[in-house]
Amino acid sequence: MARPKPLSGFPEFAPAGRIIEQRVLASLTETFELHGFGSIETRAVEPLSELTRKGEIDKEVFVVRRLHAEAGVADELGLHFDLTVPFARYVLEHAGQLNFPFRRYQIQKAWRGERPQEGRYREFTQADIDIVGSETLAAHHDAELPLVTLAALERLHVDFGVPPATMSVNNRQLSEGFYRGLGVSDHLAVLQRVDKLDKIGPDAVATLLVDEVGLSRADATKCLQLAGIRTADASFVDQVNALGVEHPLLTTGLELLAEVVDAAAAAVPGRLVADLKIARGLDYYTGTVYETTMAGYESMGSISSGGRYDSLASDGRTTYPGVGLSIGVSRILVPLIGKGVLTASRSVPTCVLVAVDAEETRGDAMATAAQLRARGIACEVAPKADKFGKQIRYADRRGIPFVWFSSGEVKDIRSGEQVAADADTWLPPAGDLKPTVVRSSLAQ
Amino acid sequence: MARPKPLSGFPEFAPAGRIIEQRVLASLTETFELHGFGSIETRAVEPLSELTRKGEIDKEVFVVRRLHAEAGVADELGLHFDLTVPFARYVLEHAGQLNFPFRRYQIQKAWRGERPQEGRYREFTQADIDIVGSETLAAHHDAELPLVTLAALERLHVDFGVPPATMSVNNRQLSEGFYRGLGVSDHLAVLQRVDKLDKIGPDAVATLLVDEVGLSRADATKCLQLAGIRTADASFVDQVNALGVEHPLLTTGLELLAEVVDAAAAAVPGRLVADLKIARGLDYYTGTVYETTMAGYESMGSISSGGRYDSLASDGRTTYPGVGLSIGVSRILVPLIGKGVLTASRSVPTCVLVAVDAEETRGDAMATAAQLRARGIACEVAPKADKFGKQIRYADRRGIPFVWFSSGEVKDIRSGEQVAADADTWLPPAGDLKPTVVRSSLAQ
Repeated sequence: MARPKPLSGFPEFAPAGRIIEQRVLASLTETFELHGFGSIETRAVEPLSELTRKGEIDKEVFVVRRLHAEAGVADELGLHFDLTVPFARYVLEHAGQLNFPFRRYQIQKAWRGERPQEGRYREFTQADIDIVGSETLAAHHDAELPLVTLAALERLHVDFGVPPATMSVNNRQLSEGFYRGLGVSDHLAVLQRVDKLDKIGPDAVATLLVDEVGLSRADATKCLQLAGIRTADASFVDQVNALGVEHPLLTTGLELLAEVVDAAAAAVPGRLVADLKIARGLDYYTGTVYETTMAGYESMGSISSGGRYDSLASDGRTTYPGVGLSIGVSRILVPLIGKGVLTASRSVPTCVLVAVDAEETRGDAMATAAQLRARGIACEVAPKADKFGKQIRYADRRGIPFVWFSSGEVKDIRSGEQVAADADTWLPPAGDLKPTVVRSSLAQ
Repeated sequence: MARPKPLSGFPEFAPAGRIIEQRVLASLTETFELHGFGSIETRAVEPLSELTRKGEIDKEVFVVRRLHAEAGVADELGLHFDLTVPFARYVLEHAGQLNFPFRRYQIQKAWRGERPQEGRYREFTQADIDIVGSETLAAHHDAELPLVTLAALERLHVDFGVPPATMSVNNRQLSEGFYRGLGVSDHLAVLQRVDKLDKIGPDAVATLLVDEVGLSRADATKCLQLAGIRTADASFVDQVNALGVEHPLLTTGLELLAEVVDAAAAAVPGRLVADLKIARGLDYYTGTVYETTMAGYESMGSISSGGRYDSLASDGRTTYPGVGLSIGVSRILVPLIGKGVLTASRSVPTCVLVAVDAEETRGDAMATAAQLRARGIACEVAPKADKFGKQIRYADRRGIPFVWFSSGEVKDIRSGEQVAADADTWLPPAGDLKPTVVRSSLAQ
């Protein structure tokens, strides 16, 4: 086999990068569990019929079939392209074993056959949280979910130097109420055009609204004025009311969005804004919608998106409404690790290399390593009874900070300091025990 | 969507089962890292050409292709069926970023399109450790790998009640040397017949050796005598020597195997035996081979297998010999969780439910929850300001042990005891902080 080339769109980390990913996933896990979300994992495959129900995405599905499947047997399975479709199926399949409202997180890979680019991969890791009710789900969960997500992202920022996140939130009932208040019947048609604002600009959107949806120039202007509202507090309510449009759905939407913004202003100040142009493409969202940018990486798109869906799943008898947010772990980490914004303090878990005097005394070195491990200190025994200088260089190449000698001494190979030590009591400095994530000067 | 049925061969855990799996994977991770193994993950897909190189397994590969791939474009990718083929490719692709000997663990899913049965799934989780050298790899790693694996399995036994494991070890050089010492040229032909011992019995194997491989009846008997040797210490050496066969490879094999058995007898007494009938089907093993049974589940087959391969990977210039062992996490856990041998103390991470007096004071409950979370206590705020009795029942159904009231009191809902508490200082008993794995009376 010649040296293989990387497969475009399938990023893989070298060991040091993987250590960073492990720390990030452990941090996300801890935040989610502290908020009472339990883990589930679903199988990688779902029925193709479920994966291709949403017309928008079917071109991106990877089909899975047995190499020696009988000829003529139709393909039935595909790799999941997100964690929401599998979660909806899981809820229906396991409903009898779940308590509602069901709070779950799910950290898994997903696959899409689309063209790879920065922030967009064919295989990527997502970390999703959702709360799903049986028949009903209280509105306050729409305010809770972004707080959990922003708390998780804030910890990545504070602990590891991941750039800070800003979440933009809107509410579809607000937009729909506003459009209906203007007398528009096809509110989705308006939403779809407004969604193009960032791509084609306000003038082009106004033209589409007039030419394609049949709005008056004045109403189109009002739609753009609505989309232009962006506030870090609940002052958007007054700005919307000043536009003079009225509708019960609009009132409800304003109240719900204000609740979300107020809760966030108290818990994670400065990290969440009401942004009334946010639409989110997928059409199953029915209320609050979220998207999130990472400072300095806005062009990559949203690193965390989601929303409220009033019927995530239904088995015909019971409907399960939910609200969810997904963090794009690969979208965040692949660029940050690739550019060296985040690095690991070393590329191995090993804290101590136990030197070997001679192959005959390897058993003694193994016994010392076992003593250290029993107290949580990760050790390797030197692979070869080389001269000590060579064994120290072996440790140095891996970033292993300490070398232990059978003389009962341990050397910090960075400072060169060598002290007498007892394998039953010695401890490294806390910061050396495990590899850590180091923010480079590139981090904000 | 009607209520979906489970997909045969793709096991999924309910939340309580997933908690057990999380604890088991965390325990394996900790053992591996304490021994200086670093984590890697590889992409789910590999080139079909690599996956189908080993003739034995190609029928089980799942092919992956884009739903809207151009017609006539050949399938190029498949899901990996183990973690060894992807690891070999990873070593070649990333060799420039790795230090050798490279010690890695890898915990991921793999997929095989074979017929599902107990212990055999189409999607399953494996936990692999390997040590790979550049050009050379010292023999002592053959003794190290089973010690790490057995230490990992022993922790699962002691901490969680997973049934104890027994690892059987052989050495292919020993078998090959013995057969060559008998004058056999095609030692693999002998090995393949002896490998059927458990299935067809010694008489049938002897017949095959005489009829198909051309051994004399006396030599066939010696091969069966060799295969019958099984000792928990190095006394197998004398038993083999008593058969009166000599060959340099046999001598080397005996020495290597004795080294493994001696090291294990010291470190994990009673858990490893020399068993000279162990062959392992895959033909890339070149030295030590391992397989492992779980007490009470022997019929399911090996829960941890592996061996030494002198050329795991080669890029034409450099050859990378290695030794590896794989733990079948799904094979261990799916039956144990399914039969209720292992259960979780609760099905949610939540330790405290913070009760809500009225929707207007939800913010106060959220603030209390934040105080508790800041000290590592997983909390949920009650989803509804129901009567307290109903909120307590909500906690009870989930197994949440504590309910916190705005009066500044916390109730252990199991004992009913309710005491005054301060959210900045109160701690639950250590055993209640997180859900734990509970061994049922069914566990050995």
